[in-house]
Amino acid sequence: MSDEGRFQRAPGRFTDRITEDGRDGWPVEAGRYRLVVSRACPWASRSLVVRRLLGLEEALSLAVADPVQDERSWRFTLDPDGRDPVLGIRFLSEAYEAREPGQPGGVSVPAVVDVPSGRLVTNDYQRITLDLETEWTRLHRPGAPDLYPEHLRDEIDERMDGIFRDVNNGVYAAGFATAQGAYDEAYGRLFARLDQLSEHLAGRRYLVGDTITEADVRLFTTLVRFDAVYHGHFKCNRNKLTEDRVLWAYARDLFQTPGFGDTVDFDHIKRHYYVVHGHINPTRIVPRGPDLRGWRSPHHREELGGRPFGDGTPPGPPPGDEVVVPL
Amino acid sequence: MSDEGRFQRAPGRFTDRITEDGRDGWPVEAGRYRLVVSRACPWASRSLVVRRLLGLEEALSLAVADPVQDERSWRFTLDPDGRDPVLGIRFLSEAYEAREPGQPGGVSVPAVVDVPSGRLVTNDYQRITLDLETEWTRLHRPGAPDLYPEHLRDEIDERMDGIFRDVNNGVYAAGFATAQGAYDEAYGRLFARLDQLSEHLAGRRYLVGDTITEADVRLFTTLVRFDAVYHGHFKCNRNKLTEDRVLWAYARDLFQTPGFGDTVDFDHIKRHYYVVHGHINPTRIVPRGPDLRGWRSPHHREELGGRPFGDGTPPGPPPGDEVVVPL
Repeated sequence: MSDEGRFQRAPGRFTDRITEDGRDGWPVEAGRYRLVVSRACPWASRSLVVRRLLGLEEALSLAVADPVQDERSWRFTLDPDGRDPVLGIRFLSEAYEAREPGQPGGVSVPAVVDVPSGRLVTNDYQRITLDLETEWTRLHRPGAPDLYPEHLRDEIDERMDGIFRDVNNGVYAAGFATAQGAYDEAYGRLFARLDQLSEHLAGRRYLVGDTITEADVRLFTTLVRFDAVYHGHFKCNRNKLTEDRVLWAYARDLFQTPGFGDTVDFDHIKRHYYVVHGHINPTRIVPRGPDLRGWRSPHHREELGGRPFGDGTPPGPPPGDEVVVPL
Repeated sequence: MSDEGRFQRAPGRFTDRITEDGRDGWPVEAGRYRLVVSRACPWASRSLVVRRLLGLEEALSLAVADPVQDERSWRFTLDPDGRDPVLGIRFLSEAYEAREPGQPGGVSVPAVVDVPSGRLVTNDYQRITLDLETEWTRLHRPGAPDLYPEHLRDEIDERMDGIFRDVNNGVYAAGFATAQGAYDEAYGRLFARLDQLSEHLAGRRYLVGDTITEADVRLFTTLVRFDAVYHGHFKCNRNKLTEDRVLWAYARDLFQTPGFGDTVDFDHIKRHYYVVHGHINPTRIVPRGPDLRGWRSPHHREELGGRPFGDGTPPGPPPGDEVVVPL
């Protein structure tokens, strides 16, 4: 927190990259790494969606942490004996410790762990998905879309920059503010940006070009949590997502696209935020609302044209052991 | 609180009645009593509305407390020198003390105070409005409506009983619950009752008969706070009021009726709940949302017929010193 009650997000501390040429010592390799996520976390959810869209489920295995952290941070309490079956650890912090004993930073997801050594490779949430898209290409499924097309990168980066500042992080800036002024400022920027995005998306199906890109993935992970958590818990309550005709249809369109909605676990999302943030919800009671059934309702965005996967194809269904209980 | 984390509302402790025959020692008399309210408080707001509808503004003067209580409870910090100009006191607790020194209960609004002696007469929020309607008739304005018609009292009482339990108090039971089970139960009862009321009001303009009654006043005071406070702060978030077509139109209809909306101060409402309830909002930050401009939008409920004031007439505008800054 700043002196003015402003929330300041720490960057990912471990920024090694897993690349085709292995220049940081971590070459792309099927089966070597394990992606550790919480389905509650919007930053980790980006990698969940991208991994599905690119068909990397077999090449990059998945560990899902309990949505409720305790004082030891992310735990594998959803697994038998409370241990990740591949890494053999009970707490994600063990992989951080293996990487740097006594490391002073927090333990965050997404995290990519080197399975043979048990060491954390990266928790760089701003980079992980971009590398899955541009360095892991050899392992993509046939028909995988190009989520970060070279000729559109400047535009995608610019979109993502505003979305990160005002939306992805903006909801946290509103919810974690400890001073009215800091909150008011975050709220103002959030809704100004959402209004701008809504206008932008009124006549086009996706944020950049006519296909799904990384920018859509990043906007989606915040929008899908908006009414369930950010509207009430983080006081982002000018209106619900469902009250913005354009953004609500846009978010539903993505939700209903294979690879998006099938990664979303609203139970994990709600329990994480409401139970973990005792400083803003001391009773730790989890609201029963909102009614989420609308996520499956028709969105009519096909009428805008667009080719969701460009020259590619949608992914198949998720692996059996990764299926989330549907709405 | 009960052992199961259930909120239990204390009844008004001082239940003397002001009557035409003065049998409790407090005869109806113009200019003798002062009604102390907070515009934030739904229980007090009942009396604000009824006093306006019946034209009792001159007969029963009004003191408006600061919406934010401190450890000394309701304060007259909105008045010059922080003192109520008529009672000459700084805290409502002084009138309680004058009534019963060392009284152990809480200090609540609405409160009716005897001006000559400075003593509290009643804080019986369930009774005060009924007595204004049935005992103060001699002082009603010409054209005042009958808000508690004799031949409809059984039906009105039954409606109000369900509304009190599941709605007026139900939102508090949800918001103040300290256990998930107690919250879930209150949430279930609240929305079941609202669904029932919504169905009931789909084809008729008012709750009982074809005119405004005390039952409408009591439902209104909760509905008008719903999206601004109860939806987020009290976790009553299955849906916003604005998402229930019938109840939203019904509430707007009343809001736009003279005597209802002109008593409502959304600034007082929001600041009271969010600032005072540190146990559920420790940051005490007041949300900027929701957008409230919709309260003035057309409701089309006239099409259902009904005679808002029966054989009577609407009240005129509020006295100049009681005008609330409009939306």
